Amino acid sequence: MDRNIARLRTRLDSLGVTLRPHLKTSKSVEVARRVMASPAGPATVSTLREASRFAGAGVRDIIYAVGIAPSKLPQVLELRAQGVDIAVVLDTAEQARAVAKASLDAGVRIPALIEIDCDGHRSGIRPGDSAQLLEIGRCLAEGAELRGVITHAGASYAARGVEALRQCAEAERRSVVDAATTLREAGLPCPVVSVGSTPTAHNATDLTGVTEVRAGVFVFFDLFMAGVGVCRIEDIALSVLATVIGHQREKGWILVDAGWMAMSQDRGTSKQEINQGYGVVCDLAGKPYADLILADANQEHGIIAVRPGSNARLPDLAIGDRVRILPNHACATGAQHGSYHVVRGASEAVEAEWPRFGGW
Amino acid sequence: MDRNIARLRTRLDSLGVTLRPHLKTSKSVEVARRVMASPAGPATVSTLREASRFAGAGVRDIIYAVGIAPSKLPQVLELRAQGVDIAVVLDTAEQARAVAKASLDAGVRIPALIEIDCDGHRSGIRPGDSAQLLEIGRCLAEGAELRGVITHAGASYAARGVEALRQCAEAERRSVVDAATTLREAGLPCPVVSVGSTPTAHNATDLTGVTEVRAGVFVFFDLFMAGVGVCRIEDIALSVLATVIGHQREKGWILVDAGWMAMSQDRGTSKQEINQGYGVVCDLAGKPYADLILADANQEHGIIAVRPGSNARLPDLAIGDRVRILPNHACATGAQHGSYHVVRGASEAVEAEWPRFGGW
Repeated sequence: MDRNIARLRTRLDSLGVTLRPHLKTSKSVEVARRVMASPAGPATVSTLREASRFAGAGVRDIIYAVGIAPSKLPQVLELRAQGVDIAVVLDTAEQARAVAKASLDAGVRIPALIEIDCDGHRSGIRPGDSAQLLEIGRCLAEGAELRGVITHAGASYAARGVEALRQCAEAERRSVVDAATTLREAGLPCPVVSVGSTPTAHNATDLTGVTEVRAGVFVFFDLFMAGVGVCRIEDIALSVLATVIGHQREKGWILVDAGWMAMSQDRGTSKQEINQGYGVVCDLAGKPYADLILADANQEHGIIAVRPGSNARLPDLAIGDRVRILPNHACATGAQHGSYHVVRGASEAVEAEWPRFGGW
Repeated sequence: MDRNIARLRTRLDSLGVTLRPHLKTSKSVEVARRVMASPAGPATVSTLREASRFAGAGVRDIIYAVGIAPSKLPQVLELRAQGVDIAVVLDTAEQARAVAKASLDAGVRIPALIEIDCDGHRSGIRPGDSAQLLEIGRCLAEGAELRGVITHAGASYAARGVEALRQCAEAERRSVVDAATTLREAGLPCPVVSVGSTPTAHNATDLTGVTEVRAGVFVFFDLFMAGVGVCRIEDIALSVLATVIGHQREKGWILVDAGWMAMSQDRGTSKQEINQGYGVVCDLAGKPYADLILADANQEHGIIAVRPGSNARLPDLAIGDRVRILPNHACATGAQHGSYHVVRGASEAVEAEWPRFGGW
């Protein structure tokens, strides 16, 4: 984890942009303090629960990066009244008017970023839709604070190869830099130009005009990111410890007490070149067994088997033996657990237990 | 929920067997008290955390229905010392020897059930493998308590039609009744003959020789169970309340603030006749909109769209409007939340908040 954090920080330092880590991956104050530039932030969150919990731990500079519902503005104002500079994200004039009205009613200018949909994968306005962009900007200016523009290259998760990832990063950059230019040319402010996804953060070669990069899963990495080519399997800093509870020898199965409740049901790698099942099975030191995956999972049962088509031998694991299972998706697997047990490298000694939270 | 509980209870009463509900679905003391025959049980659990939490709430008759790891026996003994009749499950002589040894060491006969794999889907010994069955039974008899036999017709989840489900139920019943006969003929005890899965519990027509039925998801039901044909959509007693946060009108998308963190990533219905995406979208009263599903989900973003191939019209939902989303899998979706907000029928008024727990 420390190495993953240092790697992205060094990279973004050399590109001259600020890292605003997405704390939704860890939902842990202990991890957040290691991944943020300072205990006060900056940070990105995906729920107001995260905003509130991290604010309680001293974070003062937060973007709530999911489109704002007007019913959540009282909570935003409450956080701002506590001295937290929390900004919201939106992509409609309707939301902008609601934020401006709530700002005027409270006598507090709520900062908002306009979301650009750089690759058509989710929310945000289309790049180049100046009319919509300026309408939202002007609605905000009537009471709220137009803080800037924001985008997320979610489609980069499906890109393959350095060249494709660089193109995603450049499309991501250009979408918000162009939007910032449009706003500024119309006399509107746009101090923040925010991009971010772990694949593009690790592949962008030029971030001219961008002020900050958001990324989350880089802190732990996972099998999906290894499949994208952004990390190696040995960089993955999160695993689930499981115990062998049975065998079905004729079928080549080893049963463990980690099913989808422990791993999550994320099957993201099933669409990648290497389908990792529900996870890659390692020894206690974290070294993967050859072609051994969690092939299937029920709620509390996991079925370990050799990957289909492989000639690898099923390891000789007895009842009670323990294995580590690397996850497809660190954000999803982390969310199934109440805390992290911290180990150093291949050591088994638990040095600390870091709580994590969930909910909304 | 009350209706779902009454339905299965009435059915099993008429078949003359005890219901031992699986509490892993709700992980809630309030739900458990409504689904159990008495505050003391009987009950089934999938983790020792569940055993311990429900024991703390007064449950005294528990089967821990996941194959026992020897390292967990001290916790089992601790619960027994507190007056909880907790039984373990196993399917190897190795585990049986460990349970017998732990029993002798503690001077307490730990009760154990031998698991039969009635349909080859997961754990348990093959039906008819008398040598293995008797070896395990004799290992247990040397110190532990042979409580009986247990099976779970997990393959019934993939069965279609009443006739196929009845066959699953009969194969489930026969596998354990035959095993009980083998044990008894060898002079070994077998007081408990336990079967269970929601589809077979609702379709068995004869449970001769069976002493109890375990089932879990019947309490809430879900889209997967509706796809199996065990319930109707309107029987589903669990939904996620979400708020509209955006639109992509050219794409026919409505964005809501419920993604996979709120719904889980269970995509079980993708293998059924009707693929329900990440859930079926309903109005606030719980009435499904025509062919409207949560078509895709990121961590905190859900994308609502009309089912592919349907001519249904996208409903006119504005920013801030709320919807209810029915889950594919109640066990998985519940696990993403810290509590249940209890409403009566189509009412919006929250009558109570019932906490739920997670972890191991």
